[in-house]
Amino acid sequence: MSILVMKFGGTSVANLDRIARAAKRVAREVANGHRVIVIVSAMSGRTNELVGWVEETAPLYDAREYDTVVSSGEQVTAGLMALRLQEMDICARSWLGWQVPVLTTSDHAAARITDIPTENILAKFDEDMQVAVVAGFQGLGADGRITTLGRGGSDTTAVAFAAAFDAVRCDIYTDVDGVYTTDPRLTDKARRLDRIAFEEMLELASLGAKVLQTRSVELAMRYKVRLRVLSSFEEYDPRAGTLVCDEEDIVEQNVVSGVAYQRDEAKMTLISVADRPGIAAAIFVPLAEAGVNVDMIVQNISEEGRTDMTFSCPVNQVARARKAMESARDAGAINFHDLVADTEVAKVSVVGIGMRSQSGVAAKMFRVLAQEGINIKVITTSEIKISVLIDRKYMELAVQALHDAFELEKPGSAA
Amino acid sequence: MSILVMKFGGTSVANLDRIARAAKRVAREVANGHRVIVIVSAMSGRTNELVGWVEETAPLYDAREYDTVVSSGEQVTAGLMALRLQEMDICARSWLGWQVPVLTTSDHAAARITDIPTENILAKFDEDMQVAVVAGFQGLGADGRITTLGRGGSDTTAVAFAAAFDAVRCDIYTDVDGVYTTDPRLTDKARRLDRIAFEEMLELASLGAKVLQTRSVELAMRYKVRLRVLSSFEEYDPRAGTLVCDEEDIVEQNVVSGVAYQRDEAKMTLISVADRPGIAAAIFVPLAEAGVNVDMIVQNISEEGRTDMTFSCPVNQVARARKAMESARDAGAINFHDLVADTEVAKVSVVGIGMRSQSGVAAKMFRVLAQEGINIKVITTSEIKISVLIDRKYMELAVQALHDAFELEKPGSAA
Repeated sequence: MSILVMKFGGTSVANLDRIARAAKRVAREVANGHRVIVIVSAMSGRTNELVGWVEETAPLYDAREYDTVVSSGEQVTAGLMALRLQEMDICARSWLGWQVPVLTTSDHAAARITDIPTENILAKFDEDMQVAVVAGFQGLGADGRITTLGRGGSDTTAVAFAAAFDAVRCDIYTDVDGVYTTDPRLTDKARRLDRIAFEEMLELASLGAKVLQTRSVELAMRYKVRLRVLSSFEEYDPRAGTLVCDEEDIVEQNVVSGVAYQRDEAKMTLISVADRPGIAAAIFVPLAEAGVNVDMIVQNISEEGRTDMTFSCPVNQVARARKAMESARDAGAINFHDLVADTEVAKVSVVGIGMRSQSGVAAKMFRVLAQEGINIKVITTSEIKISVLIDRKYMELAVQALHDAFELEKPGSAA
Repeated sequence: MSILVMKFGGTSVANLDRIARAAKRVAREVANGHRVIVIVSAMSGRTNELVGWVEETAPLYDAREYDTVVSSGEQVTAGLMALRLQEMDICARSWLGWQVPVLTTSDHAAARITDIPTENILAKFDEDMQVAVVAGFQGLGADGRITTLGRGGSDTTAVAFAAAFDAVRCDIYTDVDGVYTTDPRLTDKARRLDRIAFEEMLELASLGAKVLQTRSVELAMRYKVRLRVLSSFEEYDPRAGTLVCDEEDIVEQNVVSGVAYQRDEAKMTLISVADRPGIAAAIFVPLAEAGVNVDMIVQNISEEGRTDMTFSCPVNQVARARKAMESARDAGAINFHDLVADTEVAKVSVVGIGMRSQSGVAAKMFRVLAQEGINIKVITTSEIKISVLIDRKYMELAVQALHDAFELEKPGSAA
């Protein structure tokens, strides 16, 4: 029995018409001989409405009740999708998280899946069920109550089911038709990628390309789930979308796969910090505790026992970061002369697994930016990514220039 | 530990403000020293929206999926009510049907409660829980799936919990402030009853006084649950509402407790039916199978082996009844000369347990109607009820005249 997992996001099941369209796609895969596990999100807007009610009722809400309320959205879609499929003479039934059961930790509102026993659904597949419609985003905690996986968790549900059931593929239907070399709103040369490696997708997701939830990609990489991202609004095409897969499944590969960006960054510099072992922890532990998402970190050359420490964070966390640093200074944990915030910066990154075997990518990137007269403020690198902070006003220009320079509009050639 | 059950209907939890008001009532009972089981309906309008989606998706829907979708309404309210109570520093948590569990038959969309094990909730009461907020209307079928009890089922949930937990009382909060001697829209002399016997309430409920679901009253009578109907929109008054209770708990009792009516009735007469043993079954079995809700039945004196058979049903079922009778005649099961429908009639009834010991109520009723020039078309009686069919245009007049004649505006005197 070949099992296919198909996941439909909120915009793909936003109303009864869209549910009917999604059901047609499922029917086609059933006709292709698959048993299908369909993972559904809540109808779009519904989760926000439910969350709004919870927050208005109790600003500091009990996450267990939050889960009870919010999980109802996926429950409704699951039932409606099963009904729609039945109308098409397909034997389908809905499965709620506690019925499968999708076992999770009891970290309500941010639970992690611990196990998905397959017996119940496989037994129904062995009878006459053709499609199992599973409510995404939800599970059953060790406390016997409904849990949710955190926003975007339906992607994770889909990948976890694909792994547990050893599915041939996990198709994620969404409102974009795949993963692009960069944001098509920034340059019309942006090109949809046929394939992308897990590692690249992880970097792109964490860099703000909001196609897939990061955790779902991690999980797919770990369990070698072939993940396909495609649009639920386009005509059916078996070759559509972008396949997120193992590196070795990608034959033709550019050195650089994509250019990503994050617009609203801030660069903060602690001037003249007393340098000593443990100073990094003394700075970044309080920032983490204050909920500041520190991204890039650079420590300048130390002179006479003092150093400058620079880090970046989202621009709306600057006040929080400042407060945490001043509290730490007041408590005597750190010592610095000044804290300078530059709130007019953006991050631009080039990503590609080809970089591992090809040198000169960084040099080329810096040269392109220099030719455009763009000053680089901070640089960080990983094996498959180079990121720079630049003035925000040059962000679009930088993305376009890099996209051109690395010729991303052309399909990959064997590297 | 004294346990109180409080049930809030859809209009009483229609939005966050109303949920907050209901929560205040719960808090007052907690302060009075009760452990409280709160039964909540879906926010008003929500169930209709969900049912609408189901019916649009699949006109002949799978009732199991209907239950999955529709039960989500109560789930949302239960979570929100628990959150609201927590904000008032009350230790509350939500319970879904499958979590209690409320065990039911697997008759989806019309399930019956078979058992409510009390251990889980009692264990939490023994810890620190003060309020259990239970999603009404839903349970867990023997098939492991969510069931619902049919429309209005939250009343039944409330009474079943009161019986299972041996509650001191079951308070049903609704949008009316109690049970009246008749519909206040028909006469401003209508008076709220302080107490009414279960048997009377049953007759009134089945006569269209839509205060309580009939099944919930039957259940309350069987398990001697003291049931109070009161408004969630009035200021708190411990003596408010109407107590539905055992006959012996009613000290002061009028002979007649109320005058009920049903406006949209039809009277149908099968003329000259061949009279023989089994003829009633030959007529009424096909009507039942056709879904006709036959109410009153009268068989006229038989002459020469033929008889006239008259029955009443809701006016919108006349076509269905006619079709069923003509089919039965075509099939040779019955034989009649004509079927005459009078669609301009209404039913008026007087109800009172005092009738059992007091004769002359029927005579008085007929005299009052005669004095007003109202012709009686059909009469039926039970131990505690006398019903008549009359021309619809006289319905209001009849109700007012009977209310006056039996002096229902005056509180009961010891009969």
